[in-house]
Amino acid sequence: MGNQKKCKVDNVTIAYLGGGSLGWAHILITDLAMEEQISGSVRLYDIDYDAACQNAAIGNNVTAMPASKGKWSYTATKSIEEALEGADFVIASILPGTFKEMHADVHTPEKYGVYQSVGDTVGPGGIIRSLRTIPIYRDFALKIKERAPDAWVINYTNPMSVCVRTLYETFPQIKAFGCCHEVFGTQDLLASLLSKLRGINGVARHDIKMNVLGINHFTWVDKMSYLDTDLMPLYSEAVGKFSESGYKHHENNDPELSVFRDSNIVKFDLFKRYGLVAAAGDRHLAEFMPPSYLESPQTVKDFGFALTPVDYRIESRKKLVKRRSALVSGEEKITLAPTGEEGMQIIKALLGLSDYVTNVNLPNSTQMDNIPSHAIVETNALFSRDCIRPLEAGKLPDDIQNMVVRHVYNQECVVKAGLERDKPLAFNAFINDPLMAKVSLTDAKMLFDEMLESTKLYLQEWE
Amino acid sequence: MGNQKKCKVDNVTIAYLGGGSLGWAHILITDLAMEEQISGSVRLYDIDYDAACQNAAIGNNVTAMPASKGKWSYTATKSIEEALEGADFVIASILPGTFKEMHADVHTPEKYGVYQSVGDTVGPGGIIRSLRTIPIYRDFALKIKERAPDAWVINYTNPMSVCVRTLYETFPQIKAFGCCHEVFGTQDLLASLLSKLRGINGVARHDIKMNVLGINHFTWVDKMSYLDTDLMPLYSEAVGKFSESGYKHHENNDPELSVFRDSNIVKFDLFKRYGLVAAAGDRHLAEFMPPSYLESPQTVKDFGFALTPVDYRIESRKKLVKRRSALVSGEEKITLAPTGEEGMQIIKALLGLSDYVTNVNLPNSTQMDNIPSHAIVETNALFSRDCIRPLEAGKLPDDIQNMVVRHVYNQECVVKAGLERDKPLAFNAFINDPLMAKVSLTDAKMLFDEMLESTKLYLQEWE
Amino acid sequence: MGNQKKCKVDNVTIAYLGGGSLGWAHILITDLAMEEQISGSVRLYDIDYDAACQNAAIGNNVTAMPASKGKWSYTATKSIEEALEGADFVIASILPGTFKEMHADVHTPEKYGVYQSVGDTVGPGGIIRSLRTIPIYRDFALKIKERAPDAWVINYTNPMSVCVRTLYETFPQIKAFGCCHEVFGTQDLLASLLSKLRGINGVARHDIKMNVLGINHFTWVDKMSYLDTDLMPLYSEAVGKFSESGYKHHENNDPELSVFRDSNIVKFDLFKRYGLVAAAGDRHLAEFMPPSYLESPQTVKDFGFALTPVDYRIESRKKLVKRRSALVSGEEKITLAPTGEEGMQIIKALLGLSDYVTNVNLPNSTQMDNIPSHAIVETNALFSRDCIRPLEAGKLPDDIQNMVVRHVYNQECVVKAGLERDKPLAFNAFINDPLMAKVSLTDAKMLFDEMLESTKLYLQEWE
Amino acid sequence: MGNQKKCKVDNVTIAYLGGGSLGWAHILITDLAMEEQISGSVRLYDIDYDAACQNAAIGNNVTAMPASKGKWSYTATKSIEEALEGADFVIASILPGTFKEMHADVHTPEKYGVYQSVGDTVGPGGIIRSLRTIPIYRDFALKIKERAPDAWVINYTNPMSVCVRTLYETFPQIKAFGCCHEVFGTQDLLASLLSKLRGINGVARHDIKMNVLGINHFTWVDKMSYLDTDLMPLYSEAVGKFSESGYKHHENNDPELSVFRDSNIVKFDLFKRYGLVAAAGDRHLAEFMPPSYLESPQTVKDFGFALTPVDYRIESRKKLVKRRSALVSGEEKITLAPTGEEGMQIIKALLGLSDYVTNVNLPNSTQMDNIPSHAIVETNALFSRDCIRPLEAGKLPDDIQNMVVRHVYNQECVVKAGLERDKPLAFNAFINDPLMAKVSLTDAKMLFDEMLESTKLYLQEWE
Repeated sequence: MGNQKKCKVDNVTIAYLGGGSLGWAHILITDLAMEEQISGSVRLYDIDYDAACQNAAIGNNVTAMPASKGKWSYTATKSIEEALEGADFVIASILPGTFKEMHADVHTPEKYGVYQSVGDTVGPGGIIRSLRTIPIYRDFALKIKERAPDAWVINYTNPMSVCVRTLYETFPQIKAFGCCHEVFGTQDLLASLLSKLRGINGVARHDIKMNVLGINHFTWVDKMSYLDTDLMPLYSEAVGKFSESGYKHHENNDPELSVFRDSNIVKFDLFKRYGLVAAAGDRHLAEFMPPSYLESPQTVKDFGFALTPVDYRIESRKKLVKRRSALVSGEEKITLAPTGEEGMQIIKALLGLSDYVTNVNLPNSTQMDNIPSHAIVETNALFSRDCIRPLEAGKLPDDIQNMVVRHVYNQECVVKAGLERDKPLAFNAFINDPLMAKVSLTDAKMLFDEMLESTKLYLQEWE
Repeated sequence: MGNQKKCKVDNVTIAYLGGGSLGWAHILITDLAMEEQISGSVRLYDIDYDAACQNAAIGNNVTAMPASKGKWSYTATKSIEEALEGADFVIASILPGTFKEMHADVHTPEKYGVYQSVGDTVGPGGIIRSLRTIPIYRDFALKIKERAPDAWVINYTNPMSVCVRTLYETFPQIKAFGCCHEVFGTQDLLASLLSKLRGINGVARHDIKMNVLGINHFTWVDKMSYLDTDLMPLYSEAVGKFSESGYKHHENNDPELSVFRDSNIVKFDLFKRYGLVAAAGDRHLAEFMPPSYLESPQTVKDFGFALTPVDYRIESRKKLVKRRSALVSGEEKITLAPTGEEGMQIIKALLGLSDYVTNVNLPNSTQMDNIPSHAIVETNALFSRDCIRPLEAGKLPDDIQNMVVRHVYNQECVVKAGLERDKPLAFNAFINDPLMAKVSLTDAKMLFDEMLESTKLYLQEWE
Repeated sequence: MGNQKKCKVDNVTIAYLGGGSLGWAHILITDLAMEEQISGSVRLYDIDYDAACQNAAIGNNVTAMPASKGKWSYTATKSIEEALEGADFVIASILPGTFKEMHADVHTPEKYGVYQSVGDTVGPGGIIRSLRTIPIYRDFALKIKERAPDAWVINYTNPMSVCVRTLYETFPQIKAFGCCHEVFGTQDLLASLLSKLRGINGVARHDIKMNVLGINHFTWVDKMSYLDTDLMPLYSEAVGKFSESGYKHHENNDPELSVFRDSNIVKFDLFKRYGLVAAAGDRHLAEFMPPSYLESPQTVKDFGFALTPVDYRIESRKKLVKRRSALVSGEEKITLAPTGEEGMQIIKALLGLSDYVTNVNLPNSTQMDNIPSHAIVETNALFSRDCIRPLEAGKLPDDIQNMVVRHVYNQECVVKAGLERDKPLAFNAFINDPLMAKVSLTDAKMLFDEMLESTKLYLQEWE
Repeated sequence: MGNQKKCKVDNVTIAYLGGGSLGWAHILITDLAMEEQISGSVRLYDIDYDAACQNAAIGNNVTAMPASKGKWSYTATKSIEEALEGADFVIASILPGTFKEMHADVHTPEKYGVYQSVGDTVGPGGIIRSLRTIPIYRDFALKIKERAPDAWVINYTNPMSVCVRTLYETFPQIKAFGCCHEVFGTQDLLASLLSKLRGINGVARHDIKMNVLGINHFTWVDKMSYLDTDLMPLYSEAVGKFSESGYKHHENNDPELSVFRDSNIVKFDLFKRYGLVAAAGDRHLAEFMPPSYLESPQTVKDFGFALTPVDYRIESRKKLVKRRSALVSGEEKITLAPTGEEGMQIIKALLGLSDYVTNVNLPNSTQMDNIPSHAIVETNALFSRDCIRPLEAGKLPDDIQNMVVRHVYNQECVVKAGLERDKPLAFNAFINDPLMAKVSLTDAKMLFDEMLESTKLYLQEWE
């Protein structure tokens, strides 16, 4: 084989918007350190500059660890422009607003009997969060157009579809896409069921092949397999067995995490009703449906999942802040263990190091039928050198398509309303959200106004 | 000009399915009598053979009137095959089931707080009526394929979209379309407003030009004019003036008709909320929306329209039956006055006598974007010799499109469920109907079963 | 009927680009004078200002004639901006370049055995003429965008498709379309055949209904009728009778016009070979095909049509110039007789005065399948108040589609090449023109360079 | 990892139509023997039963070899039905007709100055061969529908597009696709250039990634890379260096093979003219263009490729027949060395053993724009368990698209003509083939009739 080209790419530049984050930033640092085929520099930008500096320190600490295979230098930047300038990759992972606004998103609707398990994607909370996020993402797109028009932009922020849609609407030539790990959970569930019901152990998540169709957090699977085995019969059997009792497939059952956990009962119930596998966690799925799974806190309990209170997030953040200090000071060390995220695989594929197929959020071109082009859909695509090509995903059955399309148009309305500051259009989307089914028009108007008021700091352009 | 061809077509054969009807049949007889460019024979088929015979007698009475310009001979046929054999045109206008089933469609859901003003198109009543109608229309399509494959088939039966969709699904080469006069009401309203607000009197309905988009009974208009005048500003002014008080534009204010009447308040409210003109009567429009306009009998009253009780229809039918006898015996005579229906214009256009543009229900081809092809949409088309060509109708705004598409997919599900006897799929459509928003899943199942039971006579193939 | 609105529109403003023309300008003046429902002002702009002044004088002379029903005031403008400012309609009818360049377009290829009957649309001449015209039309589009963005723009200049395409490519919101009377000739032919073979006399052209598909000068008809009569059998009979001898249907057989005349033999031969009616004159049709109809001057003679020498056009122009002087001085008067053009009908329809269906050149949206969107196609459309809606035209058979599509892509290449000054791309279109089939690659390159050289005055931006 | 599922599939049944073949059958036998993850049985069907029996003997000999990892049992079947019954895979690789008909296809047109390097895909020879093949493939499709409707059908026969199109037209639910190795040659060329111009040796063909668009034997590549290196600049450099002299990249330069060899000069010339890489061998590419590369035997020589005389094939076949006897008797043995074909990868992927991306011939769905759906295109697709999903391939530039589309519609016409025995339509395709550019209409008719006569044994249904 002689001097066949060495498969290593150096000097990769990554700009990280939201680089002061307490979650994703540490995952990225870990993943970069474990990957030996690429190296380069990471510029962390955050509206909280100090947080970015701390993450930079952590990143450099990790690079200094001997176990670290990928060598990266980290810097925090004071301006977004500085971070973006000529970057090869831009990662966007932010919290739009603060937990204060998120609290209003999630809990205000409870006054009208509307319960939300997450409140960051759809439902009244997801829509208000969207309106708040759109100006931020429009600004990202404009800066990327100016400073890094050729960069690949990876979004992790929710609401995923709205973020990616805003980027493309603002800068149509942008090379952006959105990554989300909700679908992985279904692969984990299937691996767990293979073990439980078939005695096949140790199956890796990525060896479960699935055809994904839909939109972020409301994706569906109409074909899935492990090697030569169709997994539909397995799933059907599992539904028969566990649709009442639920089935917990998560390895880590830390009670701390219980507010994020589910028992797959919603997923199993959707399979019984619609015949396909819904491929996100129950907490997300429930929010896309009419309120039957979220009728009341008791209903939620009956279906085996949880409402995630924002107070919980606030508490949990405090611990993370503490841990960060320990990581900066060196008191604590990041463990170099696989994070389960796919970011590195995707970056390597886009650099040309090896082709990769996974589900991704992209503007619809040909991947789904009868979805307006430009709307963001989540389907499989092939990542290769400087290129993402969607795979033809086929069609959803009409009853499921109907539920998906309703959110697609709602999101289209929200993005348009957000960019054009069109309050009546935003309200038309708000009232049309399935979770609002039981709220009267009058109450909906009051709720909408109250929620907008709570987030007004981020909507200053509106008046 | 010498011997330029005489514009008259003789020997036209019309098969009328539902030829015993008390309403449409008499309109047809009148229209045929008033049209001098065509003549021929009409074969009336009805499951009530005697009713068809009576209508045949009435038709022949009219032909015998000296004032009758179009000369037609009428016969009742005992079999549908006999009626269809080699027909040039087939008119289908039936009552699917009887008023007994219709009573269940309309009033059973009231137990669960679901009120329906008509109950023949969407809503729980419309869906059950659809399931009952589909086998009848599948049978029509099969017979037409066998006996009159080249005939133009004009449907007047509701649920319009489901009827036309079933014809095409069963016999894809069928030349069928659906005609409905709901849109005419909006033209009448505009003519009335031109008089009221602009002092322009005597404007004929068909001189109001509108671009129609949507589905039957839930059509929208995004462009409308009278001569060189854009009518949007006029409408907007009317909404400003009359959205509270309502505006009654009907000439005939017979209190007998009050259960069919509206005050355009729903239409005006939709304009305020969505910016376009909804172009059907309020009684129909309200049923396509979440239950805000149909919350309770009081809400309906507040919005200035009426629930049409099926008992009313039963009473009213009795009078019509009496009148029919009088028409047969010659005691009473049909008045040859314009009926306002367009059937004759369309038949003449299809015969080649003069091109005609109007709104029509057809499978979607290119006329609307992002609507599955084959789904039935209502838009303008050009009728000419043996040909209907849709006009490009453009796009609906996303918020309206969202509401329309929801019914489109629901209807697709209903047709599929009806043809394949797929009860779970039918239920998925049923529960997804906007009028069902406030009914719990459990209640919805009970209601569905009860309603199916009421219509079981027509669903014998299901078990 | 009382005070029903008077159907008259005053103060219409028309900008005429190429207002010094000797042909179209006089037709416009005549048509405007004969139309009583509209009046206003016409601004004539021409690079030959003096010619525009003369036409203005003629126009005002006509307005002064008592027989003139439509009252218009004419002015010549020195700048195009002045003409366009706020116009309601823009008419573009120019000669791109002079007869000198046209001489090169038409006759240079003869050196290589390539004969062209017109040389203004396709073939080597049409392509070079296109390259010359594109910068002029880009400039028109930019000025219209600036001065009259809401105007309806009617193009009469050839190459039609390339002109209209350039307007839209430069200013995508432009409301432009192209009108051409070639299709009318086929209607005249059919009216003539109705008389000759059926004894039906006096049929007006516009009573022959045809479904038109294709591109300008290479349109096809797959359905045609007169009242209730399908005209395909008539045409087929005519082909049987006259495909050898030819059939001359033109009323005016002035030998002066013989270089523009044909005998329909090409059209009949195309029917025999392809089964549909080609709906332009033989001189145009022949140029879209491989050179079988244009093999040599003798072939042309055998097929009963003529090569139109540019010298003939030069001579004929001299007479027209003389006549113009006579019209200015009042020595001669314009006869107010129908011109047979449709411009007035279309303008009236766009003003809202009455709907109108005719064939028109527009960017493809949904009217034709498998033609790239944006490419200019010629099909029927409905003109109404401020709106043109294409009718669904359906599909061409694959063998004809193949020939049409070849020119469509060639024109797309030419427009792109012209706008981006991409000589290799222009040459790829040039060599791919069917008339070039027998010219070797080397000869084609020499011819291309020589022809570009002849037109270089208009391609100064290219170097 | 414990008892993770063993990745092996047994009892695979393959039906081989054309199982008496002298080339592909031996490749298949070799490939099956070298693959340890699958085993099963192969049924060989051929109109030459004896040949199939000999191949079965050879196959079983190979299975008996200890070095043989994949264990397969081979049988010859007397009927196609027997071979197909319940098969998992069907391989179709036949010679349509005999070398006698092929001789007429290739050499008869030479009388009119039309030279063909292969004569099996397009050009007059390809079209006549198509007409002969269509009834055979229609028959295959009908038998597959009856006996193995769920089988994956892999076609290797030329004309590829016409064969696959006929299968789908006859049995739309068929799971068929076409494999061709022409594109591999371009990957080999690039690997060779990487070595020659960059000193990077030993690059495997499948590590060269390319985006393929077009139709079989006339595919184009608009994006290609090796690891993180864009290969377009490399190719461009190669064209600069070798476009005159040519560049031979084939390892095996056996003079015996010279009639199949090229020097890439046509490919390089197409790059200079069109800017993209044409990805088939020069012998095929030349046939899709106007005759500039095939003007005369001398031109062919100048462009560094060869006309493959059918006599050569006849001679060469004789040797192969001899070799077959030796293989049957055991005198000679098949060498178990990689054949370079992808069939096994694809079969394994369809069985679920590992995903695989490669170029494949399939009906167009969404993979290419503005190509009629159902027409057969060649683009990349992902093969996975019981599923092929096309990747979105994007668009060709208009000048190349124009050349491709011309053949697409020609092939559509040929298939339609073949299935409906429509001689005029077949002739319209024939005369429209680019290689026929210089033949007059009259000569073309004579040639067409003569060629049809030569192949009449296979067109008995035509009359």
